[in-house]
Amino acid sequence: MPVHLNTAGAGLMPPAVVETMTAYLREEAEGGAYETEQRHASALEQGVYETLARVVDAPVGDMALFDSATRAWTSAVGSLRLHPGDRIWITPYEYAGNLILWTELRRRAGVHVEVVPLLPGGDPDLDWMRRNIREDVAVVSVPHVPSGCGIVNPVEEIGRILAGRRCLYLVDACQSVGQLPVSVREIGCDLLTGAGRKFLCGPRGTGFAFVGPRLRAAASPPFHDLHVADMTSDDAYEVRTEGARRFEYAERSGAAVVGLHAALRHHLERAERGEVRPSPLRDRVREVVESLPGTRLVDPGSRHASLVTFVCEHVPAGRVREELAARGVNVWVAQGSHTPLHMRRHGVTEAVRVSPHHHNGPDDIEEFAHALGEVLRRRPAAVL
Amino acid sequence: MPVHLNTAGAGLMPPAVVETMTAYLREEAEGGAYETEQRHASALEQGVYETLARVVDAPVGDMALFDSATRAWTSAVGSLRLHPGDRIWITPYEYAGNLILWTELRRRAGVHVEVVPLLPGGDPDLDWMRRNIREDVAVVSVPHVPSGCGIVNPVEEIGRILAGRRCLYLVDACQSVGQLPVSVREIGCDLLTGAGRKFLCGPRGTGFAFVGPRLRAAASPPFHDLHVADMTSDDAYEVRTEGARRFEYAERSGAAVVGLHAALRHHLERAERGEVRPSPLRDRVREVVESLPGTRLVDPGSRHASLVTFVCEHVPAGRVREELAARGVNVWVAQGSHTPLHMRRHGVTEAVRVSPHHHNGPDDIEEFAHALGEVLRRRPAAVL
Repeated sequence: MPVHLNTAGAGLMPPAVVETMTAYLREEAEGGAYETEQRHASALEQGVYETLARVVDAPVGDMALFDSATRAWTSAVGSLRLHPGDRIWITPYEYAGNLILWTELRRRAGVHVEVVPLLPGGDPDLDWMRRNIREDVAVVSVPHVPSGCGIVNPVEEIGRILAGRRCLYLVDACQSVGQLPVSVREIGCDLLTGAGRKFLCGPRGTGFAFVGPRLRAAASPPFHDLHVADMTSDDAYEVRTEGARRFEYAERSGAAVVGLHAALRHHLERAERGEVRPSPLRDRVREVVESLPGTRLVDPGSRHASLVTFVCEHVPAGRVREELAARGVNVWVAQGSHTPLHMRRHGVTEAVRVSPHHHNGPDDIEEFAHALGEVLRRRPAAVL
Repeated sequence: MPVHLNTAGAGLMPPAVVETMTAYLREEAEGGAYETEQRHASALEQGVYETLARVVDAPVGDMALFDSATRAWTSAVGSLRLHPGDRIWITPYEYAGNLILWTELRRRAGVHVEVVPLLPGGDPDLDWMRRNIREDVAVVSVPHVPSGCGIVNPVEEIGRILAGRRCLYLVDACQSVGQLPVSVREIGCDLLTGAGRKFLCGPRGTGFAFVGPRLRAAASPPFHDLHVADMTSDDAYEVRTEGARRFEYAERSGAAVVGLHAALRHHLERAERGEVRPSPLRDRVREVVESLPGTRLVDPGSRHASLVTFVCEHVPAGRVREELAARGVNVWVAQGSHTPLHMRRHGVTEAVRVSPHHHNGPDDIEEFAHALGEVLRRRPAAVL
């Protein structure tokens, strides 16, 4: 089995997740999928939402499930009623998928998108935010941890700056949930989205959102599905819930949902043992990278999650990934185009991304160090 | 194992589907989900689309995958640029989820929704369509087989009536694909959507669409995901494909996609043996129902798929389903609210729906007959 240092891509599902999913699939294949869903209704319709609410410290009625974090984000943010002149604050760490959405809303709704400045070390300039926050700021969007580097943005402090303001506060927690304590109550946000597959080690094809009451009041989902709405006459329909699930569609993979539930329970057990924190191995990864000639860390900010990105002067990141994979070490490439504002500041088009998690041990990092040393040493012959 | 007569809800996945999925999940859990996806890239990015295109007889570039047929439908139909006064033709067999969407578009875009009249036997009045089709009809929407009864709508003939007209022609094939030959080329439609989980016997959480060039030209997807679009500057993005996949999002369950692929291949093998047809057992189901006192078939139309709905005078459909389930027979309830226009015509609020498929044998229907007889005979004591 390879050394997996790509949890920021997708974490390794613990055995309980895979076993739960395969047992569920077998039950469907033998007894019917609708019938299986009925037997598991209390987990699928209630338990998983309750567990999720505990994981992000939010009211259960504000939680919704989706097939991806992207879907969660666009379902909520794409439904916002925005007006010409509304100002949208983002940071340079905004994910390109979200930038595409803001670009489209700029065109469609006439909003202005503004980038919050950074301090020299890379942290968002909170004083600038305090000085400039006004009632025409309609939305502030911050990734808790971006996908392109390991900075932990101060989402709780930003929440205190924005408290009592008109603006809606959106937090993308895809890369933080599972490795950092995430509390909607402490952050004070109106939307928090996450993926099941990363540091929560759940299945692919799962995403979720906390959709708070202020955001729900400001949003009109474009289309409601039958599981929350009914036709009441030939030309009218009624939505049965004001909760976050009105953003969902009915159909989904039951296997993925019970797998996510198993992953969330596994996470809560770790949380109860105080084990939810960025892997301390990240510091050793940093040391390894710094010790090798011709490498450069791309690692802004004063607080860091378990996600280290770097470039190698003479070897493209894609090649480093391939060569490490051939040596049994999984890392990934952080494309410059995926967090373009941030990466451009650092003059980077692609970087190597290393993201250990709780299942990794010190030996894994030594294997990585050995393999990376080999790749960089063999560079002239192997790469040019 | 129960007798499964609920394929119209979800079919039983063949062993190859479950095995493919569980092997894929194990590979993800051991070697990483991104890495597994890379190893299976040719199936996930090409093979499954090619197989799907063969299944519905359409160009591969016009095929897109979703997490549900509902998502496929709203992604395409919800993106249409419609104008005040545009006329939308539906049939009384339209699914309530689609009706909600039309209702919303009526409110938002000012379109008129008109219901195509039926002949006395329940078939759509094609002469009426021929006489009344005009250029202000923007969309015609027909389910190949509705979810609430077994009529096979004459989608090919309707396609010939609409050929050369301005209107876009949308076909919901959720209940037909897998049990009827479905050919986009012969139907001549602009959109055809389907679910993986029904008569194709694929996994839950899978849906697909043929999105033809005329529909793509008339639609603007609200938000594009990174797998088809790039930010090209701070305030502009570019979509890299004009194909149907521009309606997709990147993230999905690889396990579900390879499972769908296995189901599609299984279906093609059956198609090559000429075995894709409604289960002949449906006629025996009909006989059984007609032979029992106090039952009434709700079975309009001159052509029928493997889906029989009926009401029992003295026993609610939900109770019939439960009592049959207790006797090891899976059927489902067709809610009146799910195909409200159709069900209201027949004065039905809920009906029992029986949907055998190729894996069922004559013995299964005799078990159903025996169990249903028991349920209806025991009625006064057991139910009142």
